[in-house]
Amino acid sequence: MMNVSCTPTISHLYNSTCSLEDNELQSFRARAERMMRQTQSTICAALEKLDGTGFTEEVWTSPDLNTSYTDRVLRNGNLFQMVAVNVAVAQSTFSPETARAATGGCLKVDEPLPFFVASLSLVIHAHNPMVPSAHGHYRYFETGCDAAPQHWWFGGGADLTPNYLFEEDVAHFHRTHREICDRYDPSYYPRFKKWCDEYFFIAHRRERRGVGGIFFDNLNDCDRETLFEFLTECAGAFPLSYLPIVRKRQDLPFTERHRHWKQLRAGRYVEFNLIYDRGTVFGLKSGGRIASVLRGLPQHARWEYQQIPVEGSEEAKMVDVLVTPREWA
Amino acid sequence: MMNVSCTPTISHLYNSTCSLEDNELQSFRARAERMMRQTQSTICAALEKLDGTGFTEEVWTSPDLNTSYTDRVLRNGNLFQMVAVNVAVAQSTFSPETARAATGGCLKVDEPLPFFVASLSLVIHAHNPMVPSAHGHYRYFETGCDAAPQHWWFGGGADLTPNYLFEEDVAHFHRTHREICDRYDPSYYPRFKKWCDEYFFIAHRRERRGVGGIFFDNLNDCDRETLFEFLTECAGAFPLSYLPIVRKRQDLPFTERHRHWKQLRAGRYVEFNLIYDRGTVFGLKSGGRIASVLRGLPQHARWEYQQIPVEGSEEAKMVDVLVTPREWA
Repeated sequence: MMNVSCTPTISHLYNSTCSLEDNELQSFRARAERMMRQTQSTICAALEKLDGTGFTEEVWTSPDLNTSYTDRVLRNGNLFQMVAVNVAVAQSTFSPETARAATGGCLKVDEPLPFFVASLSLVIHAHNPMVPSAHGHYRYFETGCDAAPQHWWFGGGADLTPNYLFEEDVAHFHRTHREICDRYDPSYYPRFKKWCDEYFFIAHRRERRGVGGIFFDNLNDCDRETLFEFLTECAGAFPLSYLPIVRKRQDLPFTERHRHWKQLRAGRYVEFNLIYDRGTVFGLKSGGRIASVLRGLPQHARWEYQQIPVEGSEEAKMVDVLVTPREWA
Repeated sequence: MMNVSCTPTISHLYNSTCSLEDNELQSFRARAERMMRQTQSTICAALEKLDGTGFTEEVWTSPDLNTSYTDRVLRNGNLFQMVAVNVAVAQSTFSPETARAATGGCLKVDEPLPFFVASLSLVIHAHNPMVPSAHGHYRYFETGCDAAPQHWWFGGGADLTPNYLFEEDVAHFHRTHREICDRYDPSYYPRFKKWCDEYFFIAHRRERRGVGGIFFDNLNDCDRETLFEFLTECAGAFPLSYLPIVRKRQDLPFTERHRHWKQLRAGRYVEFNLIYDRGTVFGLKSGGRIASVLRGLPQHARWEYQQIPVEGSEEAKMVDVLVTPREWA
């Protein structure tokens, strides 16, 4: 569904006799990794404080792709059903097929390609149907070797998936991201907002997974330091964009009807992730660690034959916005 | 995952000036449709009687593929959460792309191809976690026009998806199907049992959706009348293979633990259907009617991070059989 601008097309092989002596370049990878880890800690601390439940951490490696993972998961909290905040750092080599699959066809190479990626991803599902789910991901990608990168780019975004529409919540989420975007490039927010609406599209339902936010990939149209700062700000702002919404909605009363609708919406979330989400599909096909690949799925999902909300209901108002995205900021 | 023997490969265009005067050939399509409709009624009557709840029927057509559907659905019954027993009859023309997609790459054509298909499909999910889910599908496929078919074949099968393993139930289900198969060709049951295990494979979990049964496609290695009789017997035997199991397990007591496990297994069922099932994937991509394409999904599904059954538990015994299929008949 996504229309990616395919900037990093590489058709020649990286020269494998890289020297690792250039400390400045070496340190960029380290800095990217450090930023992801620091932001992971900040976000987890904020969520832990709000929920009153601690995260458990699992550190593991995937030897075939030389990737190290730090998964922090909060399960069955007071407010949150499930939160996963994960950092992955890979320094490995893509086969031509994997390069294509991992980048949605953008990276076309004829021969094995060394790459580095540091990423932070997070997904949050709450108990109360009035509290939206949220998702974010932030990554720095580089091909070539540490001392002599061939191509680099940033990707990321954050998006909100409510079960019920509180317009002020959606506006707050979008506005927080727009404010950061606008300070870097006035074209960012409109482009990334549209990209987000396009990416999280459940084609067979003709509706979006949620009310969007921002989504970007292959971002390298500016100097690397500036874009690194942009990514750092985006990731750092996630709690500001989301936690005030949780606080405002966490104690709202709800009934069986709301819980039921939440589970139906969770079914759509599952459909999107299993069928369309590039990361999930790649993870499943490439033999990734299933617990991690599917960590973003909601705990309870429901399907019912021909379920259509009553016209004019709160549920129908929610679907309207998913079918026809609005401008929020 | 399925290794289909690609018998009906067609590379030339059907001559569209067919005469529809040959009543004998014309009537084969009508007979196939009649058999599907009769079996639909028989199966629905048996399930209705057992459950004490009636089916509702929806008849609709998909104009683009000139397909008529008769969907019978039982929702929130006394025993069954959801039963869908559907007949579809299509008399239309495949584009080269659709022909490939609809037949898993087996039907390779260069130009539009007229086809006919009559199919019966059913899916059953019960409330009690001790009652297995079941699925069956039976179809007659023909290319060319009514008076002069180019190729024809039968496809179908039935499979069982328990949450807990009762060996005698699985053996009964397999034995019922084996007895029919053996009367036609001693190679059928072993081939179709293996094919079923291969088809219902959740590759990323390295386990099967259920304990199998039989699965076959592109079946045309015998005269058409004999194979029609075979398909009719298979479809007609579905209640015999399944209902005794329901009767035996419907009143078994269960606890929250069993219900919880059932929902986790339902999550795997959803994963299979959305990611691997050829019919579902084709239906979603081709813009099929979503309520019908996804009617097979269980009502409640659950996902949990890193859920692994305790060694030696009833849940672990179930998974063992899904990971390593056994011989049952």
